[in-house]
Amino acid sequence: MSTQRTIAILPGDGIGHEIMAEAVKVLESVNARCELGLNLEHALVGGSAIDAHGTALPEATFELCARADAILLGAVGGPKWDKLPVAERPEKAGLLEIRRRLDLFGNLRPAILYPQLADASSLKPELVAGLDILIVRELTGGIYFGQPRGIRVLENGEREGYNTYVYNESQIRRIGKVAFEAAQKRGGRLCSVDKANVLEVTMLWREIMEDMAKDYPDVELSHMYVDNAAMQLIRAPKQFDVVVTGNMFGDILSDAAAMLTGSIGMLPSASLDVNGRGMYEPCHGSAPDIAGQNKANPLATILSVAMMLRYSINEPEAAQLIEDAVSKVLDQGLRTGDIFSPGSTLVNTVEMGDAVIAAL
Amino acid sequence: MSTQRTIAILPGDGIGHEIMAEAVKVLESVNARCELGLNLEHALVGGSAIDAHGTALPEATFELCARADAILLGAVGGPKWDKLPVAERPEKAGLLEIRRRLDLFGNLRPAILYPQLADASSLKPELVAGLDILIVRELTGGIYFGQPRGIRVLENGEREGYNTYVYNESQIRRIGKVAFEAAQKRGGRLCSVDKANVLEVTMLWREIMEDMAKDYPDVELSHMYVDNAAMQLIRAPKQFDVVVTGNMFGDILSDAAAMLTGSIGMLPSASLDVNGRGMYEPCHGSAPDIAGQNKANPLATILSVAMMLRYSINEPEAAQLIEDAVSKVLDQGLRTGDIFSPGSTLVNTVEMGDAVIAAL
Ligand SMILES: [Mg+2]
Ligand SMILES: [Mg+2]
Repeated sequence: MSTQRTIAILPGDGIGHEIMAEAVKVLESVNARCELGLNLEHALVGGSAIDAHGTALPEATFELCARADAILLGAVGGPKWDKLPVAERPEKAGLLEIRRRLDLFGNLRPAILYPQLADASSLKPELVAGLDILIVRELTGGIYFGQPRGIRVLENGEREGYNTYVYNESQIRRIGKVAFEAAQKRGGRLCSVDKANVLEVTMLWREIMEDMAKDYPDVELSHMYVDNAAMQLIRAPKQFDVVVTGNMFGDILSDAAAMLTGSIGMLPSASLDVNGRGMYEPCHGSAPDIAGQNKANPLATILSVAMMLRYSINEPEAAQLIEDAVSKVLDQGLRTGDIFSPGSTLVNTVEMGDAVIAAL
Repeated sequence: MSTQRTIAILPGDGIGHEIMAEAVKVLESVNARCELGLNLEHALVGGSAIDAHGTALPEATFELCARADAILLGAVGGPKWDKLPVAERPEKAGLLEIRRRLDLFGNLRPAILYPQLADASSLKPELVAGLDILIVRELTGGIYFGQPRGIRVLENGEREGYNTYVYNESQIRRIGKVAFEAAQKRGGRLCSVDKANVLEVTMLWREIMEDMAKDYPDVELSHMYVDNAAMQLIRAPKQFDVVVTGNMFGDILSDAAAMLTGSIGMLPSASLDVNGRGMYEPCHGSAPDIAGQNKANPLATILSVAMMLRYSINEPEAAQLIEDAVSKVLDQGLRTGDIFSPGSTLVNTVEMGDAVIAAL
């Protein structure tokens, strides 16, 4: 395990610096203890890169991202850069540009609810405590990118808006591969969500998923219509292991699933390329309102480190070490403000990071 | 209020006969008491029409539907007719054919949770007790009907599936009118759900809704992206009054909202035409497994009568009478099997209908 591998560390903006500092502490600790041979290189992205270099994605940053084995991102954006044209802002010119140029099409969105935080959910605790779903969303195709699109004037003079929901076989196969392999690493069950009773594009989706299932005899494939999936996530979310779906359905369902947990400050995410390299980041944003106050919850970023070790670095034991440590600090009753409840102990960003390291 | 108005009564199949018998008892009672001048005419539809006349929608039935001021439908379908070609089955050739031929584009899907049934929800009771949302879904346009659509072979030999998400101005205006008018009859708040940050078709949708809002100064219009709407329905569903959205987003969100209540046996629905005439039916199906056993919950059909009186017959006081009576029987602890909980009194279909009439 001593091959030299590079991790790009991009703190970004707002609370990104604080939460990344804790995540890096945890990553360096695990790197040493498990002899992972990871080489951490830092770079600017987003608003902080605009301030320093006039662009949200300096070429040096992109070059690092392109050669790194994985990217760890904090969060980008803030009011300071909201007056810029959309195309120059931290989100579009920084985050989305990395995704686009590296073709990070495979979005992993876990919805995990540690039993210690079950009360934070709007659902009854017994329905969500211990929830552990992984939603695999196709991120660079489908209707959000489909052509033709636009608003045209009809012959009768009125306007018509139109978009195209489109997937070809190879796009479906490459996200299917991500999902089947994720199911192999987890509980072995994959639910493909579509609207194959109505939409031809998802009839093809379902057919390809069925065809791929032959190559994964250890994965049990099922199918569900998207409207029913939205219902089942509310009725009995623990029935799912891995869910795979297109960009738009994935947008809706992954956000719904995240909300089931009631604690978005705990959720990591990943965007992978065809070789399994990718960018890891918390689901929450840069929270400029609490930036610099040592208040932010670093656990989503710390759990992003664990995800990175599992999916891009192939070090599942190291990943498990971190996840177990997070569970331990929750058992100890330590909570940042966003997940605080009466009877628990309020800690700040640095204290939470230290506690995770102590629990490793 | 003594104009003669015609209600088409279509019991359909399975439990449709039993639940409709109770709904008709309630409707006749209110008809007499409030002197509504409603003339009820019965007809066959679905499987029972196939058995009697060889077609799920006999011309006499359609003719009645076309001239009626409103249609009350029980439920259609059952295993007996599942071997028929899809195009001849009770759902497609009966229900969907009425919708299509009468152009019933305005789907009203209430998500109401009587406080007495709050425990049935997967959400914490305090978040859903007394929930009263109306989702207005466009039902005959959008991506489910858009052209071009299909699966084609690309130049490189692989296949590509595609569908078109399309709305023109007049389609948006007519569903907008249904929604704004519904908001006027209710709490005066309308949330339009779209994905206007990405999809051009919903940019036009949002622009038209904004334009229409000028004509409804008594309605407060807001906008929400569909992924956020899915989250907010889980986080704090009571924040909504009326929601309006397109066919596909409406399919997903109305089913999710229905599931929030935990008791689909209680939910009515409507599909309206451009003149406000329409078809009213429970959200649940024909439940062949319990048909003929006097077990089915007639309340969704009884509440469909109330909806019909409010939206197509313009008799809001009569509608309220029925809704209050339903609330009273729930206060009395009466429950059919599907909503039974320990400590309440189990009643059958007829007993529940009788109790509602007694409570009127
Ligand atoms: Mg989203
Ligand atoms: Mg549906």
